[in-house]
Amino acid sequence: MSSCSPYRFSRRILSTPRSMIREILKVTERPDIISFAGGLPSPAFLDTAGVAKAAEQVLSEDGCAALQYATSEGYMPLREWIAGRYRKRFGLSIDPEEILITHGSQQTLDILGRIFINEGDPVMIEAPGYLGAIQAFSQYMPHFHAIPLGEEGPNPSRLAGALESTHPVFSYCIPNSQNPSGISYSTWCREELAGLYEDSGTLLIEDDAYGEIRFTSEKRPSFGSLLPREDVALLGSFSKIVAPGIRLGWLCANREIIDQAVTAKQASDLHSNILCQRILCRYLGENDIDLHISRIIEAYRMQCTHMLRLMDDLFPEEVSYSRPDGGMFIWLTLPKKFSAMQVWKRALDKKVAILPGTPFYTDGSGDQGIRLNFSNSDVEKIEAGITRLAGVLEEYRRAA
Amino acid sequence: MSSCSPYRFSRRILSTPRSMIREILKVTERPDIISFAGGLPSPAFLDTAGVAKAAEQVLSEDGCAALQYATSEGYMPLREWIAGRYRKRFGLSIDPEEILITHGSQQTLDILGRIFINEGDPVMIEAPGYLGAIQAFSQYMPHFHAIPLGEEGPNPSRLAGALESTHPVFSYCIPNSQNPSGISYSTWCREELAGLYEDSGTLLIEDDAYGEIRFTSEKRPSFGSLLPREDVALLGSFSKIVAPGIRLGWLCANREIIDQAVTAKQASDLHSNILCQRILCRYLGENDIDLHISRIIEAYRMQCTHMLRLMDDLFPEEVSYSRPDGGMFIWLTLPKKFSAMQVWKRALDKKVAILPGTPFYTDGSGDQGIRLNFSNSDVEKIEAGITRLAGVLEEYRRAA
Repeated sequence: MSSCSPYRFSRRILSTPRSMIREILKVTERPDIISFAGGLPSPAFLDTAGVAKAAEQVLSEDGCAALQYATSEGYMPLREWIAGRYRKRFGLSIDPEEILITHGSQQTLDILGRIFINEGDPVMIEAPGYLGAIQAFSQYMPHFHAIPLGEEGPNPSRLAGALESTHPVFSYCIPNSQNPSGISYSTWCREELAGLYEDSGTLLIEDDAYGEIRFTSEKRPSFGSLLPREDVALLGSFSKIVAPGIRLGWLCANREIIDQAVTAKQASDLHSNILCQRILCRYLGENDIDLHISRIIEAYRMQCTHMLRLMDDLFPEEVSYSRPDGGMFIWLTLPKKFSAMQVWKRALDKKVAILPGTPFYTDGSGDQGIRLNFSNSDVEKIEAGITRLAGVLEEYRRAA
Repeated sequence: MSSCSPYRFSRRILSTPRSMIREILKVTERPDIISFAGGLPSPAFLDTAGVAKAAEQVLSEDGCAALQYATSEGYMPLREWIAGRYRKRFGLSIDPEEILITHGSQQTLDILGRIFINEGDPVMIEAPGYLGAIQAFSQYMPHFHAIPLGEEGPNPSRLAGALESTHPVFSYCIPNSQNPSGISYSTWCREELAGLYEDSGTLLIEDDAYGEIRFTSEKRPSFGSLLPREDVALLGSFSKIVAPGIRLGWLCANREIIDQAVTAKQASDLHSNILCQRILCRYLGENDIDLHISRIIEAYRMQCTHMLRLMDDLFPEEVSYSRPDGGMFIWLTLPKKFSAMQVWKRALDKKVAILPGTPFYTDGSGDQGIRLNFSNSDVEKIEAGITRLAGVLEEYRRAA
């Protein structure tokens, strides 16, 4: 921002980090680049014919209602579908009135920041943490307290100390196939944490964007089952199981929170796109979503396994990485002498794109981390891309 | 909010007024109520068949791109269409890069509040002013300076004094068929105001939601033509000319503003619904939008004229009102002894809904104002509703 700008921008926007993913994605849109940088679902599972059929039905049967203004809370049959899904997945009994439809998880995060954060308020987040959440919350200028993730989740005694000393307004986490680390909290860890959060005065926000994409049949409880309803807010998204282009997700929380979130939603954009809410609802009613999800899981598991096997074979020993049990990402940890930004630049020269770790940290650290996406590349691209990346890492190791 | 709430909500959300329109709309959804309270377009002009055809084409020809993640700035062909429309309507030369696609005008207002307002910053708005803007800006806790509207717009010398004494970060106005007053700024007033804003250091925000819905052929200039590009931001919406349910609008402004607005958009919800952006763009390309708009104009002019004629015949003389040259609203001014809230309650007993004026003012005043919508009621409903409302006003006049 030049000092001769004619505009007086808010401190809020000047302190909001640009999404590095989206800046990097612009580079990686070049067709000659193999990209592991983004977080895009596989185009193979964007059911254009199914959505087209649902759109045709909605517009021919109830088109006027689908094109008119609608309620801020969201389309009731879609809220009922989501409540039913919680019942089916976790045995949770959710009132559809406890669900607000949003324009995707990013908007849910923005709304939560908006209704809870006063400037300087303590907010807890994982390290590494989801950069979309860091960006959304940053606008409201909180004080971030980052909790390092171990292989089973955050260390409970460390978290207990942080909760007591900082008393955050909320704590944000992705317990299933976390973005970016790829780890899932163990059942033991979840139970320990639930005990700490209950009556702590800190709201636990569980973002479950990847919870449906599990490579294992082992079930792990949602914090929605482990905590009293008023102590937890649940976030969900249709981006990974149906399509991101329709921008639909939800917040499930106590009525008192939903009341404030509806005011924030009104002020944000009145209501979510009702045409797409109705198309989505119709689509979910007419198609076997469980079968669809099982196919996504099968493909992503295969892509992930393939990527890990190549990394095992080709990467220098000093580079370690997570072995995800779901989701879309593998997290690399480089040796101390490495810089992820340097790797990013060198890899881009070899026409392979990765995401360096810094934007996943709130304190400027993270330059030993790299996030790799496996959902948006087929086997050929994974082979070519990982081979190139292994070459870059090996060359860098020798030079370092 | 009870003091025993377990939640620590932000001051921001606690100081954001709920949209009274949306609360009132819930009551007026009852089918036995004739409602002049909302701001809905006529269902007769929601082209379900045209949208269905465009949806079918988009999904069959480029469905994967329409369902995948997309850029925050918006779909380029749609931005180009909007730039072309500015050229056609006003002879303005706009670079599509100066346009950001949003989830409707409400989101554009939220983004502008977000990027410009620090707590306590002076912001100028019309009195009466658009309640959606008051709600959006309130979240960022500005100090509102309200400028009364006369028949030709704000009084230029009064505005000059206010600009100099308060030096607002921006000034928000709806020069065409203003919501709620129904007045349009005269050409003389626009030219006077443009002279005051130029080099004032205050950004002029022109919201032109109703500019296409003009009952007269007389052309009035946009502030985009009267001011240097960097001194004005232009807002537009597809809600009144195509459909509100798809939640699409735009911000057109200097690149430096667009840059910050894109960061705010990323943090808000990543990007606007790309399926609906592509459907809309296809729809605009395949249909004669000027013919469609001319039919909307013809219908709304007839409904407005009919409503005014009935009011001339039936309303007590002490009640005055605007005579709109476009848009969707007529503004009533009641005598001092009347209360619009009282009229609202009595009218609802007679099954006719109106919108009392208070939420259009930032200082709690406005109880002599009433907004009536004419776009969403056919001639029969207008006759029945205005007759009932006249009875309520007459009865109230006698009792007062």
